[in-house]
Parts: sequence; C-alpha cells; structure tokens
Amino acid sequence: MSVISREVHLIKRPDGMPVAGDFSIVEREVDDPAEGEVLVRNVYMSVDPAMRPPLTNGQTKLNETMGGGAIGKIVASRHPSLAEGDYVQHRFGFREYFTSNGEGLAKVTTDGEPLTTHMHVLGGTGFTAWGGLLITGQLKEGENVFVSAAAGAVGSVAAQIAKIKNCRVVGSAGSDEKVRYLVEELGLDYAFNYKNGSIARELHIGLPDGIDVYFDNVGGAHLDAAVGQMRALGRIPICGMISAYNNKGARSEGVTTLANMIYNRVTMRGFVVYEFNDRRDEFLADMRQWIADGKLKYRETIMEGIEQAPHALIGLLHGDNIGKMLVRLSEE
Amino acid sequence: MSVISREVHLIKRPDGMPVAGDFSIVEREVDDPAEGEVLVRNVYMSVDPAMRPPLTNGQTKLNETMGGGAIGKIVASRHPSLAEGDYVQHRFGFREYFTSNGEGLAKVTTDGEPLTTHMHVLGGTGFTAWGGLLITGQLKEGENVFVSAAAGAVGSVAAQIAKIKNCRVVGSAGSDEKVRYLVEELGLDYAFNYKNGSIARELHIGLPDGIDVYFDNVGGAHLDAAVGQMRALGRIPICGMISAYNNKGARSEGVTTLANMIYNRVTMRGFVVYEFNDRRDEFLADMRQWIADGKLKYRETIMEGIEQAPHALIGLLHGDNIGKMLVRLSEE
Repeated sequence: MSVISREVHLIKRPDGMPVAGDFSIVEREVDDPAEGEVLVRNVYMSVDPAMRPPLTNGQTKLNETMGGGAIGKIVASRHPSLAEGDYVQHRFGFREYFTSNGEGLAKVTTDGEPLTTHMHVLGGTGFTAWGGLLITGQLKEGENVFVSAAAGAVGSVAAQIAKIKNCRVVGSAGSDEKVRYLVEELGLDYAFNYKNGSIARELHIGLPDGIDVYFDNVGGAHLDAAVGQMRALGRIPICGMISAYNNKGARSEGVTTLANMIYNRVTMRGFVVYEFNDRRDEFLADMRQWIADGKLKYRETIMEGIEQAPHALIGLLHGDNIGKMLVRLSEE
Repeated sequence: MSVISREVHLIKRPDGMPVAGDFSIVEREVDDPAEGEVLVRNVYMSVDPAMRPPLTNGQTKLNETMGGGAIGKIVASRHPSLAEGDYVQHRFGFREYFTSNGEGLAKVTTDGEPLTTHMHVLGGTGFTAWGGLLITGQLKEGENVFVSAAAGAVGSVAAQIAKIKNCRVVGSAGSDEKVRYLVEELGLDYAFNYKNGSIARELHIGLPDGIDVYFDNVGGAHLDAAVGQMRALGRIPICGMISAYNNKGARSEGVTTLANMIYNRVTMRGFVVYEFNDRRDEFLADMRQWIADGKLKYRETIMEGIEQAPHALIGLLHGDNIGKMLVRLSEE
C-alpha cells in the first residue's frame, strides 16, 4: 500500500515579491514505511519570513519538495520508539506525507494546550522572541523597547515579553487594524502604522527618551530610524529583515545612522534560534506560566490545504496576517 | 607676571568639510598659578577624526577654547604633587598655556621612549586599537581581519596587532603611497586604495574566505562591503566613521547588507576607549614589548605651531597624514 502526497515545489526563482506561478503542487507516491521507519501525515505547517531568502539564494532547490517547520502525526510505524498517533515536529513541511527513520523528528508533548501553540508561542517562533529579547538583547526590567512588525508571530511575543518585564514598549505594524490590536489587545504603550509617516518621528513620540532595546524584524528604514535613537549601551537583536527579503541579494534600504553606535556604545547582533537550545526548558516554563496567567496572548491565521501554501507565504510577505501564519494540511 | 597664550576657537559651525575660516586664533593672557595650581605649557596636541562631529553637534562651543588631547610641561607649580618639569597628559589641547588645579592632568612617565609615543602607540590611539580589536572585537589567533583607514593612527596599530596575532590582514587606504606603506613597511597581506574601485571586489581578492573581524574606522561604503562578507560569528568593532563626519547628522552612505548579520550571527559594536581603562597596564606591557621587538612600527605627521592646528585637522579629514597627526606647540 502507498499514499499519494501533494507537495510544493519551487519551479522558478522569484525576482522580487514571489508570485503563485513560482510554485507548483506536485503529486507523489509515498511508500509504506520500511523496517525502522514511520509514515508521517503532516497536520500543520509553518509559514515564516525566513523562508524567503532561500528561494533566491539557492538554498531552496528548484523542482524539489520544499522544507519548512511542521507538525505531523505518525500514521504507521515500524520504528522502535515512535508510535502510531504520536505527534512529531520537524523541518519537512510543504508536503502531506513522508516516511522517516526518525532523524530530525522531535516528539511533541502537549499539556492540555492546543497543538498549534507548538507552532508559535511554545515553538520556534516563541523561542526566537524569548531568546532574542532576553539572551541576545539582554533586556532589563523597565527599559525602553521598540519592536517592529509587532503584530507578527515573533514580534507579538517579543512585545508582550517586554511588557511582562515592565518595559515601556512601542510597536510598529503595517495597518491600522494591527495598530489597534497592539494597543487594545496586547497592551503596548504606543503603536504606529509605519506606512503613514516618518518612523523616526513616531519613535520620538513613543519613546522620547530614546531606545534601550530595538527588536528588529524589518531592517531598512525601521533600522535606520531606530539606530539613530539608541541610548547608551543599547542593544539591537536582529531577528529578521522582512523589508529586504524581496530585494536582490536581500539588500535593505540603506542604514545611515550607524555613527550613533559609537557615541552610545550600541551592540547590534544577528541571531538564530538554535543558539538558545540549552535554555529550552526555561523558555517553556516561562511561556506556559505567562499564558496561564493571561499575560501572553496569541492569534493565528490558518489557511486550509496544501494548495494554499504558496498563497500563505505570499500573503505573509504582503503582511496579510496578524500573529502566526499556518497552513492546516489535515485533521489533527 | 602672566603669559600670552594663543588658542584656537571655533567661530562658525562647518557645513560639510571644515575650512580655515571656521576657526580663529585668539590671544589670551594666562595668569600665574594660584596656590594649589600649576601653569602648563603644551608641547604636543593630538588631532583626531573624533573631533569632527562635536564641531557640528554642538559639543564644541562657539567662541571658546577648543579641547582635545595634549601633553604639556609644567613650567610653574604651586601644587603639592606636580613639579616643574613634569609632563602631563590631558584634554586641554588647542591652546599654548593654561593653569590647572591638577584635575584632569595625568603624569606621563617615560621609559626611554620618545614623548610623542604617548600621543599615539602608548596613548589613547594605541589603546583604542588594542582594546577595540582584542576586547570589543574578541580577536582570535589566525583569523581573517580587515582594517579600514589602515594607514591612519588607530588603523595602523590595529592592523599590526592583528599581524602579531598571526591573522591574515587586509587594509584599505586612500592613496597608493599609503597602500605601499601598509604592505611594504607594516607587512599586511593585502592592501588597496579604496578610491580606485570596488571595495567589495578588493575584499573578495584579499580575503576570499570572508572576514572574521572588521575593524571599522570609516563606515559607509566600507561597512556596506564588509558586512556582506562577514563569516559566521564575525565581529565588527566600530571605532569611527570618518566617511560620515562631514555629513549632516553624521549620516553615512547607506549600509544595505545587514541581513547577512542574521544568517552569520554577526556582532557589531560601537566602543569608546575609556571602556578599557581597567586593562591599561596590560595594554602598555603588550605595546612596549612589541615595540621593543620591532613588531610594532609607527609614523607621525607633525605640524609646527598652534596656528597650524586648524590646517592639521582639515588635512586629517582629507586623509593627508600617514600615522598619527600631531601639532608641536613648543619645545619639549
């Protein structure tokens, strides 16, 4: 017996913003698991800004199944320690089924919380925000914090953690609806729609004494404005640069204010979530507590079916989502 | 009795490159020292790129004596611990004489070396290079290092320290004469005249495997090229941004390559020399040893007389000097 798996292939490297025609949905027959293997049916796949640069820089191969974070359910097992019905988290997204010898699969243990939370607040997205802010950013209680793309999956967690740490928090977003969400639902001190005017002026209004920590998801004009307003010994954890990803070579708009890093002895550091792996237990304990206390909220934007995966990614790059962008590939 | 001191005043804030007419030489009568005071006759004053931003940002006051690093000789003393004939280092440059109660004066103890070395290799310039490279930059043996403005006072020390640490070292400079100096006299592995072509291409030639540490004195186009070629866990100590200092708000040419900081987890940090004060003994021991061993060389460009001070600063900003730019105000 075998199953038919629909998978997403990149068939053309995008020049600028990706379009639907850069992708194709391909059917493939997936065999039954051999001895020592499992068959995984993917349930949710993650759609992340970080997927964009590999489409152009060659890391994502043409005419092959794309990767990406996902949670799947084991539907057949000939593996000694993975059982039918187990959920596993992995990097083999953008496909409905696959077989595996278990390498790269991590069992998901839920504690009453929705499975999807392991795709965002309790998963890599939340860990990125927690580690980037607290480890890379060395956030201290009561500081002045700016988070860009604050209504996004990572940004919304970073902004709320900063609030939990009694910081003054300003967020930027790309629509008035998102700005309302940030202030009214997440409790940020100030938020603004960056499409409506000068980012530098908005930061002067929101953080008149300057910025201690800028959690950067956007780069370019956001970074240019923020670097110029950093205070002494400020930190800039660089999580992402979504404003640059559709440009050739992922080049951002020019940042011209970097001389302020000298006078104010500012640190800017790019980070990747796997650097924090030895702190995962602490991260999970923090997040579960904050969610239980009602201090940390989340939203999900869920599209249905593998055929929506390219649209989900394109939509994400257009800023269509609030919170985490997911695609549901099958029933839990 | 009193002495006549000639002093430099800023009389007009420069718009772009400073010109002679922005400064004026003013004569002033300096009284004999009162009880508890000394009279200092300045001998050498330092001319530094870092003096440029204060001319525009307001830190340097109009129509007042300018400050700046200098070494002076005590020519009259009514102070309990400072004697006639002592040399003192201080921030009261751009003047011939001044009285002081001793605050801000540090005695200079020479050990056979020329007094001028305390203005560069054994002074703040050398300490900036040593601390920026070894502490902020966390240089490790055998790494790939790029130093911009490598024929300048700080750059030439940083480049040589990197060579002493068995690194592959590439330097940039603004003339073919300086490039020859870097390769033939200082022993750099590769050097290039940044005015003659693409900095990114030169870096690919000089450091084909990428950059571990970029010691930045220049900012702008240099930084743009270097950030794009940083290797995993690379460090960028930001010492200065001379390319930006004549621009409004010290804005540099735009840096567009910062997304590489994410993938390669690069750290960029601005620093100021006083951060290293607790390591001064170690710095002096290192430098004296390296100079004695013939591993660390230096050049000085010395102009004569206080009336040359504005020209020295303007010349420095035009890149006229190799090594340290000094003005001699009187005989030792």
